[in-house]
Amino acid sequence: MSENKNFTLAVVPGDGIGPEVTTEALKVLDAVAAQHGVTFERTEYDLGAKRWHATGETLPDAELEEIRKHDAILLGAVGDPSVPSGVLERGLLLKLRFTLDHYVNLRPSKIYPSVGSPLAAPGEVDFVVVREGTEGPYVGNGGALRVGTPAEIATEVSVNTAYGVERVVRDAFARAMARPRKKLTLVHKNNVLVHAGHLWKRTVDKVAEEFPEITVDYLHVDAATIFLVTDPARFDVIVTDNLFGDIITDLAAAISGGIGLAASGNINPDRTAPSMFEPVHGSAPDIAGQQKADPTAAILSASLLCEHLGLTEAARAIEAAVEADIEERTGAARSTAEIGDAIAKRAAG
Amino acid sequence: MSENKNFTLAVVPGDGIGPEVTTEALKVLDAVAAQHGVTFERTEYDLGAKRWHATGETLPDAELEEIRKHDAILLGAVGDPSVPSGVLERGLLLKLRFTLDHYVNLRPSKIYPSVGSPLAAPGEVDFVVVREGTEGPYVGNGGALRVGTPAEIATEVSVNTAYGVERVVRDAFARAMARPRKKLTLVHKNNVLVHAGHLWKRTVDKVAEEFPEITVDYLHVDAATIFLVTDPARFDVIVTDNLFGDIITDLAAAISGGIGLAASGNINPDRTAPSMFEPVHGSAPDIAGQQKADPTAAILSASLLCEHLGLTEAARAIEAAVEADIEERTGAARSTAEIGDAIAKRAAG
Ligand SMILES: CC(C)[C@H](C(=O)O)[C@@H](O)C(=O)O
Ligand SMILES: CC(C)[C@H](C(=O)O)[C@@H](O)C(=O)O
Repeated sequence: MSENKNFTLAVVPGDGIGPEVTTEALKVLDAVAAQHGVTFERTEYDLGAKRWHATGETLPDAELEEIRKHDAILLGAVGDPSVPSGVLERGLLLKLRFTLDHYVNLRPSKIYPSVGSPLAAPGEVDFVVVREGTEGPYVGNGGALRVGTPAEIATEVSVNTAYGVERVVRDAFARAMARPRKKLTLVHKNNVLVHAGHLWKRTVDKVAEEFPEITVDYLHVDAATIFLVTDPARFDVIVTDNLFGDIITDLAAAISGGIGLAASGNINPDRTAPSMFEPVHGSAPDIAGQQKADPTAAILSASLLCEHLGLTEAARAIEAAVEADIEERTGAARSTAEIGDAIAKRAAG
Repeated sequence: MSENKNFTLAVVPGDGIGPEVTTEALKVLDAVAAQHGVTFERTEYDLGAKRWHATGETLPDAELEEIRKHDAILLGAVGDPSVPSGVLERGLLLKLRFTLDHYVNLRPSKIYPSVGSPLAAPGEVDFVVVREGTEGPYVGNGGALRVGTPAEIATEVSVNTAYGVERVVRDAFARAMARPRKKLTLVHKNNVLVHAGHLWKRTVDKVAEEFPEITVDYLHVDAATIFLVTDPARFDVIVTDNLFGDIITDLAAAISGGIGLAASGNINPDRTAPSMFEPVHGSAPDIAGQQKADPTAAILSASLLCEHLGLTEAARAIEAAVEADIEERTGAARSTAEIGDAIAKRAAG
C-alpha cells in the first residue's frame, strides 16, 4: 500500500439528491483517509441539468480531458425532468462511461438481515452483476426517419463484438474465481437475439474452458427475473449485456434492501482511464435538497472506489461501517448528513 | 352469440409439457362448449422439436397457410434443449406471431389471495400487460460478421414504426377504458434508446389526448421492475415493446402466483388472421410426460381464446372455474389431468 499517497478525484455531484449524497461519500472518504495513509484531493465539475440550462453544454471535450487526468471519478446522480429525456444520460453519463472505456459496470447485491426485503423469504443473497458498459443497445447506434409523421421509423442497434464481450466475460470469470461459490451465470436472450446471444454464449463457453473450477449457468433474461424473486440466493456472479444489466440490477437492488443501498463501479480494468463510482439510484428530484436521501449507496460506491485504487483496508473499513450502521437502523428517520456522520465516525474508528 | 356455431381450432401441442397442458385446455373448452351452444373442431399440427429432428422443418409455409384458415390457434409450448437455441423460437413461435400479425400480446396478472406470492405484502394485484408483438428487437433484423473469430461483430436491430406503435398503443388505451381504474403506464427506456423511446412516448402522448379519462404514466423499464416488486398494485394497463414486455411479464407472473398461472393471447385485433393463445411458461422438459405440470395457464389461455371469439360467457365460466379451483388448493399434489378434470367439471357446472 502507498505511503501518504495523494489520490486525485474528479467529483461530479450532478442533479437532485446527487450533491447531498456525494457530500456524505466524500465525508466518509476523508474519515478513512488519514489512518490509511492517503489523501483524496478533489476537483468538482459542475455538470448536469443546471449547467445544461445555463450553457447548453452536457460534457465539453476539454472538460472530459481534465476529468481523465484524475485517479478516479465520484458521481452523484444525473438527470432532471426539466431536461429532455436522454440529453444528460447520453451526453454526460454515457459519454463518460463510453469514452473512459468503463467496460465493467460492477453492481453488488447483498441482503443485510436487518434491512427488510419485499420478498417473504429471500434467503442468503450475496451476488454481483458484471454488466457490460460499452456496447449493446447502449451504443447510440440508431436513428429515426420521417419523425412525427405516420410513416416514422425508429431503430436502435445493439452492437456486440468478440473484443468487447470477451474482455468483460474474462473479468467476470476472474471475479467468480475470487469468490467462495465460484459460480457464473450468463444472462441473455439467445433464443431470440440469436446473433448477439450466440456470441455471448460461445464466448462464455470458450473462456469457461480456462476456468474448470467455475460452475457455469445460462439463463434467458426473462427467466432471470423470475429467479431474482423466487430464488435470488442461487446467484453468485452474473455477467450480462448493457441493457439486460440495467434492468436486472434495478430489480436486484429492489429485492435486496432497495435502491438506497445499491452501489456501482464503472470500471476500466486496463486502467487506461479513471474508473467512475456512483450509486445505482437516480437524482430523485422530488426529495432533492431536503436531507431525505439515503447516502448509503453513494458511500458504498466510495468503498468500491477505494478497492479499485488498491486501498483494500479502507474499502473494508467503509463496508464494515455501513454494515454496522445498517444493523442498528431502527426505522427512525435520520437526515442524509446524520447517516453520513454516523458511518464516517464508525469508518474512522 | 352464435347458435351452435362450430369454431375451428388449430392446435399446436409442441414440446415438453406442451401436449399435456394442451389436453387439459381442450378438455375444458369441450366442457363449456355444449352449454354455450358451440363446438370446437380441431386440427392438430405436429410442430416442434420432434418434427425438426425428423424433417429439419420448423413451420413450412404451406402448413402456415393451413393454420391461417382456422378461427383460432391453441399452442402448448415450444422448445427443447436438443434443438439449437433460437431455431424453434424464431422458426416456429415468432414466425406464427409475426406472419399472423399478432401485434397485441396480452398478458394479464392477478394475485389470487389463496396462492402464495414471493412478495411479503403484494397488495391487490390485477393488471394487464399489452406487449407489442410484431416489432422491436424481435424482428430478427441483425446479423454477424466473421463469426467465431476475434474480430466477430454481431448486431440486433430494434425496428419501431409509427404504424406499429400507434396500433398497439390504441389497443392498450381501449383496454384501459374498459377497466375501472382507467390507468395506462408506458414502459420503455427513452433516456437511452432515444429514437425508439421517443417514438413510443410521443405516440402515447398523442393518443392520450383522445382519452382524457385515462391517467397516463411513464416508467423506464428498470424502474418498472422495482415497482413490480415493491408496489405492483399501482399498475392497471401497461403498454410496452416486445422485449421489455417479455421481461416484465415473466417478472409479473413470478410475483403473482407463478408461471403456472400466467396466460397469454397473441391477438390480431383486426382479425385478418387467427389469434393464438398460449401459456407464458415454456416447455419445461425436465418434468415433461410426468403429469406434474400445472395446466392452469393453458386453461386460462383457453378462456382468453373464448373471449376473443366473442364467447364471453364461456370465457367467464372458465375463469370462474379456475378461480374456484385455485381458492381450494391445499398444496396437495394433483396430476395435470386431475387439475384439468376438476376445472372442467366446475366450468361445465
Ligand atoms: C440513467 C441511465 C442512463 C442509467 C443506465 O441506464 O445505465 C441508469 O439507469 C443506471 O443504471 O445507471
Ligand atoms: C420462447 C420465447 C421466444 C418467447 C418470447 O421471448 O416471446 C417466450 O419467452 C414468451 O414470453 O412467450
